[in-house]
Amino acid sequence: MNIVCLAGGVGGAKLADGLARLLPVDQLTIIGNTGDDFEHWGLKICPDLDTVLYTLAGVASVERGWGLEGESWRTLTQVGALAGPDWFRIGDLDLATHLARTHYLRQDGLSLTAATRKLCAAQGVTARLLPMSDEANPTLIETTDGVLGFQDWFVLQQWQPNVQRVILPDTARATNAVISALQKADAVVIAPSNPFVSVDPILNAYPIRPIIEDLVPVVIAVTPIIGGDAVKGPLAKMLRDWGKTVSAETIAQHYGDLLTGFIYDQGDDPFTMDDVTIVGENTWMRTAQDRTRVAQAVINLIETQHRELA
Amino acid sequence: MNIVCLAGGVGGAKLADGLARLLPVDQLTIIGNTGDDFEHWGLKICPDLDTVLYTLAGVASVERGWGLEGESWRTLTQVGALAGPDWFRIGDLDLATHLARTHYLRQDGLSLTAATRKLCAAQGVTARLLPMSDEANPTLIETTDGVLGFQDWFVLQQWQPNVQRVILPDTARATNAVISALQKADAVVIAPSNPFVSVDPILNAYPIRPIIEDLVPVVIAVTPIIGGDAVKGPLAKMLRDWGKTVSAETIAQHYGDLLTGFIYDQGDDPFTMDDVTIVGENTWMRTAQDRTRVAQAVINLIETQHRELA
Repeated sequence: MNIVCLAGGVGGAKLADGLARLLPVDQLTIIGNTGDDFEHWGLKICPDLDTVLYTLAGVASVERGWGLEGESWRTLTQVGALAGPDWFRIGDLDLATHLARTHYLRQDGLSLTAATRKLCAAQGVTARLLPMSDEANPTLIETTDGVLGFQDWFVLQQWQPNVQRVILPDTARATNAVISALQKADAVVIAPSNPFVSVDPILNAYPIRPIIEDLVPVVIAVTPIIGGDAVKGPLAKMLRDWGKTVSAETIAQHYGDLLTGFIYDQGDDPFTMDDVTIVGENTWMRTAQDRTRVAQAVINLIETQHRELA
Repeated sequence: MNIVCLAGGVGGAKLADGLARLLPVDQLTIIGNTGDDFEHWGLKICPDLDTVLYTLAGVASVERGWGLEGESWRTLTQVGALAGPDWFRIGDLDLATHLARTHYLRQDGLSLTAATRKLCAAQGVTARLLPMSDEANPTLIETTDGVLGFQDWFVLQQWQPNVQRVILPDTARATNAVISALQKADAVVIAPSNPFVSVDPILNAYPIRPIIEDLVPVVIAVTPIIGGDAVKGPLAKMLRDWGKTVSAETIAQHYGDLLTGFIYDQGDDPFTMDDVTIVGENTWMRTAQDRTRVAQAVINLIETQHRELA
């Protein structure tokens, strides 16, 4: 059974980690969002990809929700003292990832895929983590304050300007490694990440969406909305600003025909959708056991759907 | 009196600092060597320029001879742990300089001259420090092991491969700020730096050498050789490898017609040179007082030569 997980930031990373704990390494591919990558201090920064990487490596900061455990801020503080930009909080350990990656890309001429593989290997991550694309495909956020780069909106402006539209590049192309993994996939799992700014950028990297639509028999999404709120980040605010209900059903409807199954949180109201199996589970992920519990529910639903297809 | 100091690394930085302590800020311009600049971890690193900057700011490490006081190595250690290159020892504080500079250059689109001005201002350095050039003009070292990038030879190989030739780019061009400072200069001071790899790259940036030859009435060099050895670095080894005497006279002869005056260390043997005033002084610079003492000797010689010209 080949499973491909589309993972955005924190929620995506947790489910990807749960799947990686349960599945043999050759049966799981994690595709990371690179739409929120940007250049800062001259370095290539891949926030979503690194959140997955750090979570898989078991070094992500649990309390902070981003960056690393045991982090320090000496260089960041000094950049601030030099009147350089210090609004994007890069710790001393995290910084090493960006430095090594930028070196691999610019000076060794590696692709982002190959650089990610090296960073995974160096941290003992055996799970297969692929960036959706090797090229820059920046997500732009059209807000009431104008069009902003993703991190300008998300971190610098703390996602306060109302989002009018998420602008994804027409030219985004998936890597061959991603295409090949999807072509062999028995199931795709859409992790509990923000659909608009974390998952849609992955689906937008051609031909990820058409391959999933045409070739992948089972596609399961896990809700990023629990109890009428986003677990983390701007999703609930975005839905409210757009006049939509903040619910799992809204998310399921957004993915629409792409889905064969959807897992909502069992504390929330059930709903139905034509041709989509809707399952309620405890989807809250705090501990490592939570992650494997949700991942197991996903695997169970995949197996059930494959039995039904057979 | 307008004085321009050509400064390489540690020795150059010390004399530049001595001059900066004695002269009004509008009477001194320090031109830094950027021939040893390189790209590392994707960042623009300017080792000689930073040595001058840190020395002027009073934060340079005195014992280590490079980098900063109170430095730590957390990011470097982590880059090593990620299998990234860690042979060039960048500390956490030093790193902030490279990050801020690279940001100013790549993202703010500043010139190296403007970026250097910002870094100076942020550290309270009022002295005018100019990179010789805004473009990359890498010095290459032709050795018995092949042609090496400067830092590959100097740091990675610890200047052990014998130097056959120092290769300076034909295309190096000085900035307008440098040209303008030299056109107004009443005297040029060649600091006690390695003539071949620190000063010649500056003189090679067109039209620095012809302007000095044609327009500057007084040109004083201070010996980087004391007691038959280089104070620091590969200079003595280079001279020995080339079969030359390791002496102040060899250095004075190297600059030749460019000079009107030369200061050697008073513990060494005196020598004479046509049309060049040779003066012995205590040139050893350990303390801040040493720096101002040597700088005062330089200023005295400049004033004497100007009186003779009048």
